[in-house]
Amino acid sequence: MLTLCVRNVLFRSFPSQSSSDAVQLTVRPCSSSRAQEEDLHQTRTLLRLCVDRYFLSPGEANMELFRRGMSCRYGPLGTELRRNLLEQWWHSVSRTTAQVFGINTLSSSSGDTATGAPRKLNIVENEHIKQILEEKEVSKDLLIQKIQVLLQRSPTGRTSCLQGALEQFVPSLELVNRKLPFGLAETGLCFQPSGGSGCPGEVTRASLVWFCSARASSQWLDHWTRQRLKWWRKFALSPSDFSSSDVPEEELEKAASRGVRIIYSFPWGRRRWRRCGTEETLSCCGHTEEIAPMCSFVFQCRDGRKSVPHVISVTANVDRGALAFLSNSLQTLKKEDSRQRLQQRKVLKLHPVLAPVKVALDIGRGASVELRQVCEGLLKEFMEAKISTWPGYLETSAGQLNTKYDEMGVLFTVVVNENTLESGLLQVRSRDTTVRETMHISEIKKFLSRYITAADNV
Amino acid sequence: MLTLCVRNVLFRSFPSQSSSDAVQLTVRPCSSSRAQEEDLHQTRTLLRLCVDRYFLSPGEANMELFRRGMSCRYGPLGTELRRNLLEQWWHSVSRTTAQVFGINTLSSSSGDTATGAPRKLNIVENEHIKQILEEKEVSKDLLIQKIQVLLQRSPTGRTSCLQGALEQFVPSLELVNRKLPFGLAETGLCFQPSGGSGCPGEVTRASLVWFCSARASSQWLDHWTRQRLKWWRKFALSPSDFSSSDVPEEELEKAASRGVRIIYSFPWGRRRWRRCGTEETLSCCGHTEEIAPMCSFVFQCRDGRKSVPHVISVTANVDRGALAFLSNSLQTLKKEDSRQRLQQRKVLKLHPVLAPVKVALDIGRGASVELRQVCEGLLKEFMEAKISTWPGYLETSAGQLNTKYDEMGVLFTVVVNENTLESGLLQVRSRDTTVRETMHISEIKKFLSRYITAADNV
Repeated sequence: MLTLCVRNVLFRSFPSQSSSDAVQLTVRPCSSSRAQEEDLHQTRTLLRLCVDRYFLSPGEANMELFRRGMSCRYGPLGTELRRNLLEQWWHSVSRTTAQVFGINTLSSSSGDTATGAPRKLNIVENEHIKQILEEKEVSKDLLIQKIQVLLQRSPTGRTSCLQGALEQFVPSLELVNRKLPFGLAETGLCFQPSGGSGCPGEVTRASLVWFCSARASSQWLDHWTRQRLKWWRKFALSPSDFSSSDVPEEELEKAASRGVRIIYSFPWGRRRWRRCGTEETLSCCGHTEEIAPMCSFVFQCRDGRKSVPHVISVTANVDRGALAFLSNSLQTLKKEDSRQRLQQRKVLKLHPVLAPVKVALDIGRGASVELRQVCEGLLKEFMEAKISTWPGYLETSAGQLNTKYDEMGVLFTVVVNENTLESGLLQVRSRDTTVRETMHISEIKKFLSRYITAADNV
Repeated sequence: MLTLCVRNVLFRSFPSQSSSDAVQLTVRPCSSSRAQEEDLHQTRTLLRLCVDRYFLSPGEANMELFRRGMSCRYGPLGTELRRNLLEQWWHSVSRTTAQVFGINTLSSSSGDTATGAPRKLNIVENEHIKQILEEKEVSKDLLIQKIQVLLQRSPTGRTSCLQGALEQFVPSLELVNRKLPFGLAETGLCFQPSGGSGCPGEVTRASLVWFCSARASSQWLDHWTRQRLKWWRKFALSPSDFSSSDVPEEELEKAASRGVRIIYSFPWGRRRWRRCGTEETLSCCGHTEEIAPMCSFVFQCRDGRKSVPHVISVTANVDRGALAFLSNSLQTLKKEDSRQRLQQRKVLKLHPVLAPVKVALDIGRGASVELRQVCEGLLKEFMEAKISTWPGYLETSAGQLNTKYDEMGVLFTVVVNENTLESGLLQVRSRDTTVRETMHISEIKKFLSRYITAADNV
């Protein structure tokens, strides 16, 4: 069997069919005049697939949020993908060195923060503002004053995790024996000011704030850039689509001396997509005193010297990361079926660790009651082993299963049939090779666990 | 060796000392007159320990948030405990039956929600409201009108995950082959209106919304109550402290027919603590039509019959859960040391699965450079096996280590000493038995993994 694949291939809407053996490829170079139309088409194909295959909840507004790399309503598969992504980020940042500690601060902080972070978003209670607006005997000036006091007292929604980590610097000193460098990691909800549209959004950020000496800060920035780029590439189908580039000086934030962006080049619409932001941003924020002038960060090291730490901020956008990996893993293959008709096969080749569903369980021919019991037993076994499983045997529609599972990124499809009842043998189909193997029922769990672990350790 | 423990014991602030072998117990029945003072003392002891041992960030306001079962600033150990708790909840609810699907919706929804949820909290941009307030040529009435429009258009912060799940009902029907019952699980940030204080707070909720037929709803409520109570008790040191009780009819929400609360009886100050809320609330919310009259939930089953689902809502407060398990697992033991002085030992006997740190690595006597290298090797090995490890060898203060680790709830302390370099043997001390064992360095990782897995499968 020959299976070739190509990225950036121009495709039309052929009706999807189940896999066959003969594979043929057509690559057409994109002409610049048609590029825009194609951009739109490719974007739509990805978003359509995400909605059809339970990654995203339907709705134009929801799809638009997702496309812009913001938090949105995710279906079961999108939820699981994001969970896997967050888990991997957390593990790679906070659990591979002894110097990084996880923290959890608040998404909204009441009153003025100690670090003097700018107030962009206020969380106000309807009840309170209503009371003020309904007061009759109040002049306009007093009304304005009352609203201003209410706003001043109301909590502020955070736009990044940086401020929370800065506030935890002093309490964390004891943890690290008053020694630089060390880091504080946090993942969580941040708000995103609307920039004029009037409707602020949400974004899930994964943040590492690294405190180090001024002398070593540039080296640390390089270190973390290498580490983080390696991480993105580890899970990518085509690693070279993820790259790093320096932030131009004019785009650096105040007090920052250097910045690096990790960017995923979307195969379609590079211009349009890139404008939406970056997958991960690393920056030398500068001395803590400059970033948070209202706090004192001067501390005495164990050896008696005084030190003011430098801050490096590493911030990933998890929602945009999920979009990047979905886009990167979508392969479109053209092939001829046995009757020489051209067909299209879409496969979401998500990394085994990220794939939201590792295995689907289905019923082939045979006595359905007994087969269902076998499926239920396997489902229980897989779930206990924390192997995420799709209960395909509960669905009635048997047709086009491989097409569906390929678009869901399901790693393996296990089919239980009458043969299983007699000999204990199952059919196992691989998403990546489309090969069907026969395996004994007693071996399948171990096989799946090993496959996933092996992919994680590469 | 004799190790006994007692709960609800009255203790004073003895200086903590390292463990010894003789254990003696003193139990004093609480007199009702001193109960209040004691409540305060015991609460303070727990909160103090949480701050000293990196569960909580310091600060009176932060401790107060935690005590009230709200989200607050957590240190590394509190962050890890919460992660473990969320992971266990998610696994038990969404990964043990094929009918529960995980979803992820937004913490704030823009404009009016489809389900007509009440607007309690608004997220407004400072910039916009400032613009309105600064307009000079505007009458008071117009000003009020403009603010009202702004509020109407601004996103609303959710107070529970119920509305998000109701909105996902229709898109999820296909997933379940249009068959009841099924459930949608979500964990995430919710806001909590202040109730007058002017400062709304945050709370992390874990929510299951279960759709079933009206006929079976009461049975399902009983089913989920049993399941959830079993879950809470699984991780408790003293399971009977977790109990369920019916919600009195007058406290039920509109349209709800029945409700059950899962409550942890704090050993101190039952009255005061209970008022703060419940660990988990289950309720028969009633017909979907009554809860969300603006949506249509009538759907056609595969067999052609029309159906309107009933909703059961199961909502846990994760922050309060963390507090309950911390309180439940804190044991205070009194014992005599070898010189017959009365000593006090505090141990946080958190369940092995929940314990934020599974093992601490320390250096005993011997050549420090080589021993440190051994520790670093072990740390790497443990981290790769996802065993959360405390790098004790990085700290200089060697004294009182067992006291510290017991209060941190560290399951095992591994001491590497000169003997290790010669024979490969380590000293392993257990938190729960205080027994020190000798183990070969090649066996330790397997031993720890097995211990944790075994505790999980009980």
